[in-house]
Amino acid sequence: MVPETPSIEQEIDQLCTTARACYARGWVPATSGNFSVREGNRIFITPTGLDKGTLAPADLLAIDLEGRALAGSGRPSAETSLHTVIYRERVHAKAILHVHTIWNTLLSGKFVSTGHVPLHGYELLKGLSGVASHDHTEHVPIIENTQEYAELAEHLRDVLRSNRDAHGVLLSRHGLYTWGESVAEARRHLEALEFLFEVEGRRLFSHQD
Amino acid sequence: MVPETPSIEQEIDQLCTTARACYARGWVPATSGNFSVREGNRIFITPTGLDKGTLAPADLLAIDLEGRALAGSGRPSAETSLHTVIYRERVHAKAILHVHTIWNTLLSGKFVSTGHVPLHGYELLKGLSGVASHDHTEHVPIIENTQEYAELAEHLRDVLRSNRDAHGVLLSRHGLYTWGESVAEARRHLEALEFLFEVEGRRLFSHQD
Amino acid sequence: MVPETPSIEQEIDQLCTTARACYARGWVPATSGNFSVREGNRIFITPTGLDKGTLAPADLLAIDLEGRALAGSGRPSAETSLHTVIYRERVHAKAILHVHTIWNTLLSGKFVSTGHVPLHGYELLKGLSGVASHDHTEHVPIIENTQEYAELAEHLRDVLRSNRDAHGVLLSRHGLYTWGESVAEARRHLEALEFLFEVEGRRLFSHQD
Amino acid sequence: MVPETPSIEQEIDQLCTTARACYARGWVPATSGNFSVREGNRIFITPTGLDKGTLAPADLLAIDLEGRALAGSGRPSAETSLHTVIYRERVHAKAILHVHTIWNTLLSGKFVSTGHVPLHGYELLKGLSGVASHDHTEHVPIIENTQEYAELAEHLRDVLRSNRDAHGVLLSRHGLYTWGESVAEARRHLEALEFLFEVEGRRLFSHQD
Repeated sequence: MVPETPSIEQEIDQLCTTARACYARGWVPATSGNFSVREGNRIFITPTGLDKGTLAPADLLAIDLEGRALAGSGRPSAETSLHTVIYRERVHAKAILHVHTIWNTLLSGKFVSTGHVPLHGYELLKGLSGVASHDHTEHVPIIENTQEYAELAEHLRDVLRSNRDAHGVLLSRHGLYTWGESVAEARRHLEALEFLFEVEGRRLFSHQD
Repeated sequence: MVPETPSIEQEIDQLCTTARACYARGWVPATSGNFSVREGNRIFITPTGLDKGTLAPADLLAIDLEGRALAGSGRPSAETSLHTVIYRERVHAKAILHVHTIWNTLLSGKFVSTGHVPLHGYELLKGLSGVASHDHTEHVPIIENTQEYAELAEHLRDVLRSNRDAHGVLLSRHGLYTWGESVAEARRHLEALEFLFEVEGRRLFSHQD
Repeated sequence: MVPETPSIEQEIDQLCTTARACYARGWVPATSGNFSVREGNRIFITPTGLDKGTLAPADLLAIDLEGRALAGSGRPSAETSLHTVIYRERVHAKAILHVHTIWNTLLSGKFVSTGHVPLHGYELLKGLSGVASHDHTEHVPIIENTQEYAELAEHLRDVLRSNRDAHGVLLSRHGLYTWGESVAEARRHLEALEFLFEVEGRRLFSHQD
Repeated sequence: MVPETPSIEQEIDQLCTTARACYARGWVPATSGNFSVREGNRIFITPTGLDKGTLAPADLLAIDLEGRALAGSGRPSAETSLHTVIYRERVHAKAILHVHTIWNTLLSGKFVSTGHVPLHGYELLKGLSGVASHDHTEHVPIIENTQEYAELAEHLRDVLRSNRDAHGVLLSRHGLYTWGESVAEARRHLEALEFLFEVEGRRLFSHQD
């Protein structure tokens, strides 16, 4: 049962389903977050300011890899440039998910000075493509948050180049970017990383150790 | 894709959808909370003692800006006067949401003596209209809770006048009032503030920092 | 809009809806919990060992106030005697809800030696019938858990007699019993008490105070 | 109302319903977890890498008690051998559930050096078959996690033989295996154990006690 490569229409459907599921879990409150898929040089991406709880395929904008509008009537998000950077630096990436969760906000704030969140020893690390053992340390890089998006895009590019194995990048007290070779893989990375952030968060913010 | 101004019927529908969603999240337990929209001098508001999990447009009462009944058969909530104060002091407000959540109860209790909950440095602050950067401090004013509603309405009026930029007001160990120029904007403020209360609550009530 | 007194069929429907909602919230895991309504001397009650996630009216047993079976084919729960004690001691009670939640388990364990959980200063206390102010202290009595149900029924009777104003009773590390003059009132008490247990639990189990 | 023994088709349906419910609760993130039922020498089991949120009967593989494929086109999970060990050592077991939750991950990490999680004094222990009182101590054995599945299967066999009364086994920082004589019983054990892990987790990771 080798699955066929999904069509771009199927991927767009999956992206919208994933976005709505993220909203239901409280991971993209207050119209935050953004989501995209790529086919060749075309990117289909959520516009700014849209409630993700009711996202439908017709809401997406089509842009090119330089972020120029191809189709759709919404306004691109300021964070569109972060998507195009990821697609250029991760040539196999076909889908990008960006979410704001309680635990990624807390951990990216706590670890910003050390530059990454370390995750080690958990079976769920195997939810990340290429990781075959719990005995692996995933360093999730953290970029200091800023409203200067050109600067942010440059930092993200540098971080992606110096962390070839990273499956996601955090913006401090802001959120997570993760990606995959399909929407399904990107979602698997998202679910694995957010599970691990919550486990580590509850452990580190408790009285125990 | 500039959205048209929604009709009052659409806004009432959205208000009921929002109230039911709040119930599902545990934000208006035990028939608590109340919700309203305004069109001109008419306010459509939830009556007292109603389960918000099944709220429908026909349940709403119509009142005027002085709180006098225009239509509908339920009994106005004692907190109706707080809605009319907000509509008079915030002339652009068209919708008001009032919820009781675990984290707004905890934080409004913890900070009542300092008079506000400070929120700083989070990207989600941009979910509040007019806030363009995470590098912003939102002070959410806290009013001491009381059952003297005339007194409470006066305090609320004073707090709204002396905190022109506030996007919401807390009653101590009671709940949050927030508003917007549409139900969608009020809901965005609600989701942003409650996310930030939970993040700050988990950080402050933990062993860390 | 004075609501008519609901029929027993409507109350049974509401009871099943409430039980399924409690299951969805994780409040009656592993077939735990039980629920009943009364009409005159007849009690309709959940049988033992039933998954509450799919509870339907036909699942209920009819018993009398002494706990003798009148109709239905399931086996009465060992806790049926606690329901009959409550109906005898609280003559206006028409519905009883018994749930096992994370926070009622934690608080009933923490406070068992002092004999009650104190709840004070919260607006949500007004979700309890007859409570008109947040400036009220609700003492929720705690009975030491035991598998001797005759003994437990006796303790419960004594506690109900010496705590005339109580809206619920906890069994230590076991769960909450609450009741009302209708299913809707019992559910309001349940939602108010569980909200307050979670708030107090998070406050008391944290590093803060 | 003695329930008839469910058919294998009904059990497979129940297994898929249970798996989807586990996904909805966040207990099998990122395609983790696996689930099986047995009829005689045939085991129907989830293949590797499948999202459990949409699991359907046609997705299951049929294998024998030695783990050899009988039917179905997916690839067996590396953990299939753990299922066959449980079915051989617990001859009455007809269903096995394996989940990764926040609290079983935290507790299996905290207690791995002592070899088990102790659970004592909770009414919910009666959700475990054969346990008739809260005054019972359940020791949930913990096996050190490893990617050597032959070794893991051997350890599991030894732990099952030296803990005849255990209702579940934890793999450290990995997850829980539990089972039952039907899917319903296995699910009851799962819900009871996970409730108790969360209660104990919140108690032990807090500032209290």
